[in-house]
This record gives sequence, structure tokens and C-alpha cells, in this order.
Amino acid sequence: MACFIVFEGGDGSGKSTQVRSLLGRLRRRNIQVLSTYEPGGTRLGQALRRLLKSGEPMPAISELMLFEAARAQLVDQVIQPFLNDGGVVIADRFTSSTTAYQGYGRGLDLEMIERLNQEATGGLKPDLTVLLDLPVETALARKNGSADNFDDAPIDFHRKIRLGYCKLAAANSDRWLVLDGQRKADDLSRDIWANVQTIM
Amino acid sequence: MACFIVFEGGDGSGKSTQVRSLLGRLRRRNIQVLSTYEPGGTRLGQALRRLLKSGEPMPAISELMLFEAARAQLVDQVIQPFLNDGGVVIADRFTSSTTAYQGYGRGLDLEMIERLNQEATGGLKPDLTVLLDLPVETALARKNGSADNFDDAPIDFHRKIRLGYCKLAAANSDRWLVLDGQRKADDLSRDIWANVQTIM
Repeated sequence: MACFIVFEGGDGSGKSTQVRSLLGRLRRRNIQVLSTYEPGGTRLGQALRRLLKSGEPMPAISELMLFEAARAQLVDQVIQPFLNDGGVVIADRFTSSTTAYQGYGRGLDLEMIERLNQEATGGLKPDLTVLLDLPVETALARKNGSADNFDDAPIDFHRKIRLGYCKLAAANSDRWLVLDGQRKADDLSRDIWANVQTIM
Repeated sequence: MACFIVFEGGDGSGKSTQVRSLLGRLRRRNIQVLSTYEPGGTRLGQALRRLLKSGEPMPAISELMLFEAARAQLVDQVIQPFLNDGGVVIADRFTSSTTAYQGYGRGLDLEMIERLNQEATGGLKPDLTVLLDLPVETALARKNGSADNFDDAPIDFHRKIRLGYCKLAAANSDRWLVLDGQRKADDLSRDIWANVQTIM
């Protein structure tokens, strides 16, 4: 019954909406479910989130380490115990965000990131990763005006991230569900639910 | 002229005293010198230091990542630029602290730590590492009552750290100076100064 579902995609791809929707469907069926997000699902995660968003200049490698530090604690104290108790965990971002953003986006070594992801998670892998994919321009227009922008990086950075996500999905197609994030939220939610039912 | 000198040793080994003493000798000779400590030589470092000392429970791997994040920024923004300008940098703790504490002390994989140390520092190595070595009981008795204890770990933890430092020193004897931390501070300071002069 334990099941670990991750939502990935750029800012403005509609992850939060789909997380909420899936959470509601599971709760209505009285399934033990927990929703987390990165970085921030713990007190340390919140503190690191504030640091990462503070505008404090830091090299990409420091940024990478802070994300991994937060993730390691989140897995250790929150995600893994909940899965061990047989629950369903829905995560808004996980290791693939790091590969996409710090690897493909910032250009850090992909093999090193893979190693750190492995160390930080103790090898925990999602049963399903849902990628909400949409053109960078559309996503940026959506998040325009949002106060929760994680960065105001140039459009080329977001293009590299989208490319990274697509490569990850192609390399792991058996456990990834790639959806067109431009479709209506209700349609997406129905497709995600149909897929989740097949793995639970 | 650029020279990077690191002081290592357990808590209570007298590093701060020797850092101050060497700093004074260099300044009196009008040598451009900067003193840093870990974690904490930058705003990010200070924030991470507070987090690490807050008592927030976290897995050893998170602790490791926070130290490396702080170090990467310190090297990038403070240490390397000062060395590039031809200055002398004196650091209170550097990569060997991570190997000794998180590796030998907490039992994290030494090869992984070596890799992270390398990534965080961009390969920067000290020209000289001064290890102040003394029996664990003596060091703990010295720091007893100090408000600046980084942890209140059991004595066995500190023994593992001392062993780790000794192994590092043995493996890098050409660039390490191991001194008996039980000797008088003035005598130690003189020996350190004599050694520093040979590498400047």
C-alpha cells in the first residue's frame, strides 16, 4: 500500500494544483496520505528555504548542498517513516528537481548530483513521477506576478531545465508519467488518478 | 607570497589561541593576512552555524552537506579571492575537520567526503595544516564550562576524531605539522612561526 508519488515540472507548471487534487481524492477514500514539498517540509527545510530565497549570493555548489541537506532530513524524519507505516506520500519536487535545476540548469556535474541524490535519500526512489511539461513561455506567463518565484533567472535557464526533465523522463519511462501541462487541470487530474490507481 | 594555513584539532585543543598569535606576528610584519573560521566566515556560514548548533535533529548526511555548503561559499567569496590577491589566509578548521568529524566521528563514507571536500573547495589545498593534538580527556576538561561547545557527544566520539586527524596527518606528512597541544602556548606559537617562515 505504501506508495511514493512525486510531482515535477518548472515553476508555473501547475504542480501545486495537481498535488491538492490527488490529495483530496486519496483523503476522500480514507487513505493515509501525506503531502510534502521541497525545500521546506521540516523546520530545517523551512530555514534553508528562507536562506535560498534570501538573495544571499552563493556558488551553485552551495545551493546544491543546501537542497540535499534539506532533502536528507525530510526523507529521514518524514517521508520514509510515513512510507514504513504503509502510507502514501505525495511530494512536490524531489531528486529530479536537483538534477534538472542544478545539473541541467546550472551546469553542475550530473554524476556528482546523482551520487548526492542517492546519499541524501538513502536510495529511496518514487514509485511514480508525474512531470507537468509545458512551454517555458507559457509557464513564465502563468507565474508572472506570483510572489513565490524561486528565482528570476533568464528564459534560457528555464529551457535547460525543461530539457533536463525530458531527458530524465525518457531515461525512466516506466516510472514517469509525462503530461501536457497546458491541458485543463480537471483533465490532468483524472489522468493522474487513473495512473495512480494502477500502482497502488 | 599567497599562503593558506589551516589549524585543525578537537574542541579545546587551543586552535583559537594559536590563530590569534600567528595573525599578530604576520600583521606586525605588515603582511596582508585574513583569518577565517568554519562554519561562519560569511553571512550564510553564520546562518548555517546557528542551524547546526540549534539542536535541530538531523541525519549526519545533512550536517555534512551544511558544512560543505558553508565551505564552498567561504572559499568562493573570501578565501580564494584573498589568495589570488597574494594574501595569507589563516583558517580555523577546513576540509580535514569534515573528514575527522563526519567521517571518522560519525562514520560517513570517507571517499564520499573526500569527493565533497574537493567539490566544495574547487580543489584548494592548504599549504600547511597545523594539528594541535592532545589527549581527549585533557581537551574536554579544558573546554568544560565553555558556552561554545559544538556538541556534547560521548568521549568515544572525540577519540575517533583524534584518530582520524592522526591518520590524515600521517598520510600527508609533508604538509602537516603535528604539535603536542599540551605544551605551553608560547612554545607552540614559536614552533608554528618557525615552520610558517619556511613556506612563505
